Amino acid sequence: MLQHPPAEPGMREEDIDTPALVLDLDAFEHNLDTMAALLAPTGTKLRAHAKTHKSPIVALQQMRRGAVGQCVQKVAEAEALAWGGVPDILVSNEVIAPRKLARLAALSGIARVAVCADDLAGISAIEAAAEHAGIRMTVLVEIDCGAGRCGVEPGPQAVALAERIAASPHLIFGGLQSYHGNAQHRRTPEQRRDAIAHAAEGTRRTVEQLRQRGLECAIVGGAGTGTFQHEAASGIWNEIQAGSYAFMDADYGRNEDPPPFRHSLFVLAEVMSAPRPGFAVLDAGHKAVAVDSGLPLVHGRPGLAYTGASDEHGNIKAEDPALAPRLGEKLRLIPGHCDPTVDRYDWYVGVRKGRVECLWPIAARGGMA
Amino acid sequence: MLQHPPAEPGMREEDIDTPALVLDLDAFEHNLDTMAALLAPTGTKLRAHAKTHKSPIVALQQMRRGAVGQCVQKVAEAEALAWGGVPDILVSNEVIAPRKLARLAALSGIARVAVCADDLAGISAIEAAAEHAGIRMTVLVEIDCGAGRCGVEPGPQAVALAERIAASPHLIFGGLQSYHGNAQHRRTPEQRRDAIAHAAEGTRRTVEQLRQRGLECAIVGGAGTGTFQHEAASGIWNEIQAGSYAFMDADYGRNEDPPPFRHSLFVLAEVMSAPRPGFAVLDAGHKAVAVDSGLPLVHGRPGLAYTGASDEHGNIKAEDPALAPRLGEKLRLIPGHCDPTVDRYDWYVGVRKGRVECLWPIAARGGMA
Repeated sequence: MLQHPPAEPGMREEDIDTPALVLDLDAFEHNLDTMAALLAPTGTKLRAHAKTHKSPIVALQQMRRGAVGQCVQKVAEAEALAWGGVPDILVSNEVIAPRKLARLAALSGIARVAVCADDLAGISAIEAAAEHAGIRMTVLVEIDCGAGRCGVEPGPQAVALAERIAASPHLIFGGLQSYHGNAQHRRTPEQRRDAIAHAAEGTRRTVEQLRQRGLECAIVGGAGTGTFQHEAASGIWNEIQAGSYAFMDADYGRNEDPPPFRHSLFVLAEVMSAPRPGFAVLDAGHKAVAVDSGLPLVHGRPGLAYTGASDEHGNIKAEDPALAPRLGEKLRLIPGHCDPTVDRYDWYVGVRKGRVECLWPIAARGGMA
Repeated sequence: MLQHPPAEPGMREEDIDTPALVLDLDAFEHNLDTMAALLAPTGTKLRAHAKTHKSPIVALQQMRRGAVGQCVQKVAEAEALAWGGVPDILVSNEVIAPRKLARLAALSGIARVAVCADDLAGISAIEAAAEHAGIRMTVLVEIDCGAGRCGVEPGPQAVALAERIAASPHLIFGGLQSYHGNAQHRRTPEQRRDAIAHAAEGTRRTVEQLRQRGLECAIVGGAGTGTFQHEAASGIWNEIQAGSYAFMDADYGRNEDPPPFRHSLFVLAEVMSAPRPGFAVLDAGHKAVAVDSGLPLVHGRPGLAYTGASDEHGNIKAEDPALAPRLGEKLRLIPGHCDPTVDRYDWYVGVRKGRVECLWPIAARGGMA
């Protein structure tokens, strides 16, 4: 059920079997260095989000460039990272199923692990798992700082959960999870700034109320690739959870004043039919490239547009028939959304200067539980 | 990288780890029997499409109920089926990459294999692979009968390709591939009937022109779950390539006069946060359930709607807060689109009367090459 690798080291990019997930290593490393350079003067740490990359190899490269740990959304992702040598993992999400919590607790022998909660019953479930495993589990309280998804209201509700955690002999209060997910793709810089200013107000208030009760937040975590410069400059958040910055995608590119990263992640696809002038069909449809945030863009080929995705086919239209790609030609697509695109593949094919340099397994691919 | 199974045989459905792909075996078998009963009086055969299910286990059950073989879109799917014991496989799609064609030719020792072409260069590539492997490969000509994707125009263009195939000592002319993909989801019965009437005209004309040149079509293949009753009744097509009929999905359910099958495929998801009255968050977002054809429906729980998907979260709104699901409660979701949803999972969890009966690996999951 693991698919065989689509390439071998040393191969030319045009010889990679398609569709394949190609990582431009120069652009990827540029992005890691850029993030480190942007955060250094703020004193804010990076805890990069592995929901984007799902790979302990990527995680360890981020940590070699200064990240203090990793975030994940799922226990299966935490397992893949811990088993791959990542020493510090925050599940930036609620986990309530006893079977999942037992798996998470079982990782404590090989990694520092923390998890979020937004409900007293959820905290009791974590406490039971920790007690059963004979460990103390670190728990952050998630507040809803504007996204309207998980998390309690900032203020007294969050304080009550924190006190419940701090009072347990099996738990450690780890701080606040405060992520404004839907601010990341608001198109204007002003919209993003205002959303984070609003999130900052509730977060600051909650931190202060906790301090009044003698509870310090070791972690105040949040932020994504679209807004992290605001959170980093706020003096409130101390950990940035950006993930997409490593790869960039077409949808982040549509933000006005987009984040300062290069496209490093591509789906390499081949023209498998060219039945009419100015029209070609690629072997990559929406099973190969996520379309939840829009269609992919064609990289480095002006005049070509990816105009429609079916399950296994992608339609390419050329402005001018003379520009149309030939049967068998390969194109790099910039995914509309990098996270779910990565999740469709078993392998990164790392490319530098037109040659395959490495193959990295996407160890947490499909890890939803 | 293979995810561990989310259940064990004998377990109650509510104990399955989430998100999980649950197959209601009674409904699934009903669908297989219904298709067999509908096709029997027409004399048209079923060559079910494995792009939907990606599993030799499902394929062999379809064949035990009368299917003559399977279709696939990708060589990796053909491999998974052939290795799993499926004896007759048509790649209902163009394959032009030499590396892929060599893999396809290598399957000929264990299965009957055929492939489609819509270009002279493509035929030459298949011929070279067949010659190199020392086999004769069966090739169908794909015509564009209305979908506007792959395939040559019906008529002389198709005849020219067929003659090229028939003239090769390494190839066998296998017939016509004539699938009207985008007719399947046209909403009214009249739209679907008219689209297939148009497709039938070009297909019939091509079959007749081929016959005038002495070329008989062993296979005239096409049709999907939305239109197959038209193709089956036409007297032109002799093989039906429906796939979704085994599972049904929410989008086929939106057709007026929808196909006569039951929903058998579900994503089982758990409420992992219930932060506000009337609102809950499931642990299944668009990494767990495909949204390219719309959001999933909540099965068997009137008053609940799945209103938004992010990567790992699904928002549930209740018409009346009293109907809202509790933290930890599990819901069955009907996927908007079954094919890409299946492709996100490693396992089917077969359920009957509330108990897990079987676990089936999704052997071609991620098989895009």
